[in-house]
Amino acid sequence: MKITEIVITPIAMKDPPLRNIQGVHQPYALRSILQVRTDDGLTGLGETYGDRAILTALRAVAPRLTGLDPFDLNGLERIIGHTLGSAAGLATHGLVGEASDEKTLATVLSAFEIACWDLQGRALKRPVVELLGGKVRDAVPYSGYLFFKPAAHTPSPPYETDRWGEAMDAEGIVAQARRMVDEYGFKSLKLKGGVLPALDEADVILALRDAFPDHPLRLDPNAGWTVATSIAVGHKLDGVLEYLEDPTAGISGMAAVAREVSMPLATNMCVTAFSHLPPAVRENAVQVVLSDHHFWGGLRRSRELAAICRTFGIGLSMHSNSHLGISLAAMTHLAGATPELTYDCDTHYPYLVEDVVQEGVLSFTDGAVRVPSTPGLGVDLDLDSLARLAEQYEKCGFDTRDDVTPMLAVDPAWDPVVPRW
Amino acid sequence: MKITEIVITPIAMKDPPLRNIQGVHQPYALRSILQVRTDDGLTGLGETYGDRAILTALRAVAPRLTGLDPFDLNGLERIIGHTLGSAAGLATHGLVGEASDEKTLATVLSAFEIACWDLQGRALKRPVVELLGGKVRDAVPYSGYLFFKPAAHTPSPPYETDRWGEAMDAEGIVAQARRMVDEYGFKSLKLKGGVLPALDEADVILALRDAFPDHPLRLDPNAGWTVATSIAVGHKLDGVLEYLEDPTAGISGMAAVAREVSMPLATNMCVTAFSHLPPAVRENAVQVVLSDHHFWGGLRRSRELAAICRTFGIGLSMHSNSHLGISLAAMTHLAGATPELTYDCDTHYPYLVEDVVQEGVLSFTDGAVRVPSTPGLGVDLDLDSLARLAEQYEKCGFDTRDDVTPMLAVDPAWDPVVPRW
Ligand SMILES: [Mg+2]
Ligand SMILES: [Mg+2]
Repeated sequence: MKITEIVITPIAMKDPPLRNIQGVHQPYALRSILQVRTDDGLTGLGETYGDRAILTALRAVAPRLTGLDPFDLNGLERIIGHTLGSAAGLATHGLVGEASDEKTLATVLSAFEIACWDLQGRALKRPVVELLGGKVRDAVPYSGYLFFKPAAHTPSPPYETDRWGEAMDAEGIVAQARRMVDEYGFKSLKLKGGVLPALDEADVILALRDAFPDHPLRLDPNAGWTVATSIAVGHKLDGVLEYLEDPTAGISGMAAVAREVSMPLATNMCVTAFSHLPPAVRENAVQVVLSDHHFWGGLRRSRELAAICRTFGIGLSMHSNSHLGISLAAMTHLAGATPELTYDCDTHYPYLVEDVVQEGVLSFTDGAVRVPSTPGLGVDLDLDSLARLAEQYEKCGFDTRDDVTPMLAVDPAWDPVVPRW
Repeated sequence: MKITEIVITPIAMKDPPLRNIQGVHQPYALRSILQVRTDDGLTGLGETYGDRAILTALRAVAPRLTGLDPFDLNGLERIIGHTLGSAAGLATHGLVGEASDEKTLATVLSAFEIACWDLQGRALKRPVVELLGGKVRDAVPYSGYLFFKPAAHTPSPPYETDRWGEAMDAEGIVAQARRMVDEYGFKSLKLKGGVLPALDEADVILALRDAFPDHPLRLDPNAGWTVATSIAVGHKLDGVLEYLEDPTAGISGMAAVAREVSMPLATNMCVTAFSHLPPAVRENAVQVVLSDHHFWGGLRRSRELAAICRTFGIGLSMHSNSHLGISLAAMTHLAGATPELTYDCDTHYPYLVEDVVQEGVLSFTDGAVRVPSTPGLGVDLDLDSLARLAEQYEKCGFDTRDDVTPMLAVDPAWDPVVPRW
């Protein structure tokens, strides 16, 4: 089995105006969709970020992969390393930590690696979860991801307003959570913070606690707070949070908070590459790492991360960016085969209103997605939808994620400086 | 593909009187050979220790594996865990560190896991190296493993004396090394120490350095020395050794030596399970870990160990016990797919005079073994040899490795106490 052709399609999908420390989501989220074809007529699918910088890197690598055996993941990594060389790290939005050569390589590797796993599974007629060592759970539990948000984008984009309505206070968030839980069955809830003053967000968590006494709760202000504020919130939410995610920036900052608060600290910002693990372990900076196969280097590397977390007594959860069904399938296969993942995974999937995969495979029951049992990732492209979202990409007017500019349309004085509180 | 039957055959193979800190090898080394059969007519091979305790555990697990898919390595681990439960750790000989429940489970897991990888490869018509991510090298370099030894066993066993002759001083070891290098092409040399007084063994290393100016050299007294002696040897061999292996016992002891000597310290004694890694990292006790799929839990776990070593800046080498061709094949596939393995691997293979696998696949060229390219591990049983070695096991008169008793036949006053110097 050899790779013969790779088609990379950038797409734009409608996205609600979800708020965070940097500002607000643009009206479209960008993704790259990979179709990797082989000489035996199979097509493997991949999905990753759609920003111009990553797209450029994917396009530089793709032609070099002709002739590669999709089982040769070491060869894949070697070719990507040679192609990208010591190219400067891709600029990425700041919500998943700083850019570096290590992360660039891992991000590009992941996109193709996922497609290789899909091809392996299709060739062997086995779901990816079986190639990862077999299911440790039949369905993967996800957490309901709550966002502060206005009712609509500013200015309003040429499509119908999202169905979630405004949620800029405790009442709005509790209502959003109620709907998430009712519709999807989520058993845990995560609030994206960094929008209201820190102690006000702690009050929103307390309101969620009242409304959902049995749901584990998480709060993630994306490093928007000082160490002192983080500790104050930690004290206020003592015994309330399952974990506090990235309250402040950097390994040393997180370590300073960890020494003073009772709940575990989680991160997808200060530990986002293997080189961050030794200092994090040394300083006991984080008690939970949110893995993300998109920037950790794919499924193999994510499992290495799981082994490291298991060995060093660090919990493992899973991070999500806005994504489509290919990524949800990959996340679900990975989590389905990874016993170390004991926290419900994050997902933006409830906010998705259009997908590139055919319907019917991925759905939520009791907050969990059943691990697909058909070959490969178990999802197939809807080519009409792909074409429509590709056209949407061409027309959307931007090629890089940017949460600041749309926020300036809402508030011309907006300053995304951190720490903010 | 489901497992239908497992045949476990203990065997005894002739072994020369190789000396070490505990005494001397018995005239036979014991191994367990596994044949794991499936409903589609395939047989996967495994090889591990042959001691009674491990054999008992293997036999307890085997019947529980009927119906298991050989791809379901997570299921395999689950069944083994349930079967062995919290059984007390197997007593093992002390040359690979202390026994524990963690190591018992890992050892039993490995034996079956290897056979599962062999079955996966046979089913997919791919060599195991390809299932591990693909070759990073075409051939795996091994180091020439030198042993102090008398000319013959005491009392002499009912078979021809080995071809290596006596080697109880520098001259004998240099001659043994010359023959190893001439016959096998080894590019590095390892001396098993713990036999002569420590500084005398350092002199033997200096004689090897004179005779082989370009060969990396290693010395391994199996924790036979005090911290002070270890430091003295380290100073004497400053700039001479590639690494000093287990000069003294325990993570804290090794850390105390590491602070005072210039060469890396390696271990297959104080870090032999995942739970040993956090304290070893914290104390910077070792700079090289010798992996061994037999007690680290198989190929998957060995690759997790490799990822941890890469992440924490620890070198990776590979340990060997007396073994047959199935283990050599597994070691070669693993090393063939593991970029983190940058040190030549250990092997006792030159001392082997009888094997259970058919000839022709495994051979040494320039000190390296070509990674097999046929399906699975790439080796097949010679059933006549297996039957003969099984008969030899029944007649050999012991069922557990014991280097002390045969040493008492040589020296009735022998005391295997450590540290000795
Ligand atoms: Mg986060
Ligand atoms: Mg050793």
